[in-house]
Amino acid sequence: MSTAENLADDLQQRMLDLGAGARAAATVLAKAPAEAKNQALLAAAAAIRAEQAAILAANATDIAAAEKRDLTAALMDRLLLNEDRVEAMAAGLEAIAELTDPVGDTIAEWDRPNGLRIARVRVPLGVIGIIYESRPNVTADAGALCLKSGNAAILRGGSESFHSSRAIHDCLVAGLRAAGLPEGAIQLVPTTDRAAVGMMLTMPQHIDIIVPRGGRGLIERVQNESRVPVIAHLDGNCHVYVDGSADLAMAREISLNAKLRRTGICGASETLLVDRQCAATHLAPLVKDLLDAGCEVRGDDDTQGADSRVVPATEADWDTEYLDSIIAVKVVDGVGDAIAHIEDYGSHHTESIVAQDDAAAERFLAEVDSAIVLHNASTQFADGGEFGMGAEIGISTNRLHARGPVGVEQLTSFKYVVHGQGQIRP
Amino acid sequence: MSTAENLADDLQQRMLDLGAGARAAATVLAKAPAEAKNQALLAAAAAIRAEQAAILAANATDIAAAEKRDLTAALMDRLLLNEDRVEAMAAGLEAIAELTDPVGDTIAEWDRPNGLRIARVRVPLGVIGIIYESRPNVTADAGALCLKSGNAAILRGGSESFHSSRAIHDCLVAGLRAAGLPEGAIQLVPTTDRAAVGMMLTMPQHIDIIVPRGGRGLIERVQNESRVPVIAHLDGNCHVYVDGSADLAMAREISLNAKLRRTGICGASETLLVDRQCAATHLAPLVKDLLDAGCEVRGDDDTQGADSRVVPATEADWDTEYLDSIIAVKVVDGVGDAIAHIEDYGSHHTESIVAQDDAAAERFLAEVDSAIVLHNASTQFADGGEFGMGAEIGISTNRLHARGPVGVEQLTSFKYVVHGQGQIRP
Repeated sequence: MSTAENLADDLQQRMLDLGAGARAAATVLAKAPAEAKNQALLAAAAAIRAEQAAILAANATDIAAAEKRDLTAALMDRLLLNEDRVEAMAAGLEAIAELTDPVGDTIAEWDRPNGLRIARVRVPLGVIGIIYESRPNVTADAGALCLKSGNAAILRGGSESFHSSRAIHDCLVAGLRAAGLPEGAIQLVPTTDRAAVGMMLTMPQHIDIIVPRGGRGLIERVQNESRVPVIAHLDGNCHVYVDGSADLAMAREISLNAKLRRTGICGASETLLVDRQCAATHLAPLVKDLLDAGCEVRGDDDTQGADSRVVPATEADWDTEYLDSIIAVKVVDGVGDAIAHIEDYGSHHTESIVAQDDAAAERFLAEVDSAIVLHNASTQFADGGEFGMGAEIGISTNRLHARGPVGVEQLTSFKYVVHGQGQIRP
Repeated sequence: MSTAENLADDLQQRMLDLGAGARAAATVLAKAPAEAKNQALLAAAAAIRAEQAAILAANATDIAAAEKRDLTAALMDRLLLNEDRVEAMAAGLEAIAELTDPVGDTIAEWDRPNGLRIARVRVPLGVIGIIYESRPNVTADAGALCLKSGNAAILRGGSESFHSSRAIHDCLVAGLRAAGLPEGAIQLVPTTDRAAVGMMLTMPQHIDIIVPRGGRGLIERVQNESRVPVIAHLDGNCHVYVDGSADLAMAREISLNAKLRRTGICGASETLLVDRQCAATHLAPLVKDLLDAGCEVRGDDDTQGADSRVVPATEADWDTEYLDSIIAVKVVDGVGDAIAHIEDYGSHHTESIVAQDDAAAERFLAEVDSAIVLHNASTQFADGGEFGMGAEIGISTNRLHARGPVGVEQLTSFKYVVHGQGQIRP
């Protein structure tokens, strides 16, 4: 056997050991009282504050290595930790401790004519594998959300944030230890070897769910290779449609906010559709607002006619999630045409209609097949926190299990608990 | 290009066309009113009754072909249709028409401090691919459940039931036509070529969910090859545990019913665990009942001592789903030992505890990680109908999305519908 094969076997064995440890911890976590899980979260938050210097030093090591690799400014920003960001991580853990514990919650309960009482009760999913890229704070967020929902977590961070993630993970382990919970409950894959990811995707005996967090490349790789079910978060090619009945002032506010409040989040709008009915009055001011705010506008012929600064849109623009200060703008023939455009080009993530006409709004809400549909509100509300779910691990574009924001409730399964008095089936 | 390659390309194109047709029909179905779907189901039931002779003739063709292939008696019985079974199919469609329409149902609704009103509303999953084996009635049941839940169905029956399924499918199409719904809503793969199954598993653009119904070989093939999410129904290695506190008369009734009411269903018990605390009084009568009823009993040493007809159990018996008049019996040391045995050998499907001690029962219900856990009731209640869900497409052993019986509600996804008054995100 070659040395390379030996190393691969060795990694395989380490990953299987890690998986078996997670499975054993999951059995303990499923029975752990809410108090113990919360105690672990609070102790981890305290450890993060106490170890701020160590975390920042580890991050400096990652940053120094990244500088040699010529990463983009956006990636460097994602990787960077500072005192505020470390404090935000600690506060995030405390906020998760405050959430209602979903485990053991009775979702539904009913009686049968034969006297059986049936309850559907929330239980953890089991072991969740999180595969992420550069943001080291995902280590804290994802680990904490899994713990709160009674799941064991196997965390696989990006190689560029390896030292930062390890320092944060040390604090999570300190929290588990303080609460008497098994250290296997939150494990960090202790290598940057990419082969470890492939192994996670093919360990259905040890991992119940994979949650990839990162760019399209990562998510597509995971979706294509995984033998474990995936909760994926794909594109957010989101739309705002301004109906002929829209209030212009409201449409301007929503259109600007949906595009530019933050351009890099999945709920940022990427295409603005304007009803031909109101184009004469609404199109020019809507486009002017965006241009004046520094946004590049790529428009169809009508939109190009509304402002000389508009550049021509190509077919590819309707398909594109820019995640940048660029927007595609098109004039459509009413709500039906808007819905058809969204179904043709959208990614079924989040879409909003601005309209005073309730019939048009209800049609849009009913017929647009997206995880989130809004009437007279910004698409930037596509967020678990804004929905009142507390923290989220992502926004699912799956149709199965969790669609939309994935919070602690969405990280659970359920079982049926049936109470009888000796019933047998006739 | 060879003729074989031409044929494969041709099949691929036909499957893609079928998928595109299903996708188009799904868009219509998602908006179809409950009345239209119910009208289609009732018209299909009427067509099945009217075409009884044609269906039985088609079935006779399948039976004649099967006889030449030397199928087992069990398989022949699954394949066989008669007047009663055709009537049961028609009545089944009518029962599904009677169910509450899940689509559009508001699952939850809440207000946010900023005035946004958020509702979680049921929507169809989209296109469901059903891959099944010999039972031709699955054509009617599965097609109807998909239709009721607003999903388009692509049905792939077993080659041995091809003519029967086609005759039944004709009746479903007649129902769709009578209600003005697209014929693409329920399509039958028009070939027995096994390559068609592989194509269904790799068309995520056209099929949202695969539901395999059949033996372990089929399900494992689907789970291994599918690029589409699978709602799978794996083994039901179910247990009855008779606690030391159990009432003997109740334990005897439940143990017999759980094993022998019907041995071929997934909720039939396969292993009986008896607490050492009551073994002296309970073990012999429990085992005698089973033996007297014609059941083979494979036991551990204690059980062999309880009745001379007991044969020795081997390690493999604890793992086996017999689906036959055979049971494995073991004496365990209390509820903790019973739970440990079930976690080691069970398939997380359905388990029951017989106990007068509520603390033991609550521990069993909480700690046994199965889709269905029962106290003082037979495992044979593991059934969507018995749970009050109406018909079911199977019992899921998934942890994601649907766990346990899969009825029309479990064949839906949801979306978030948000009503605002011009809110933008700060």
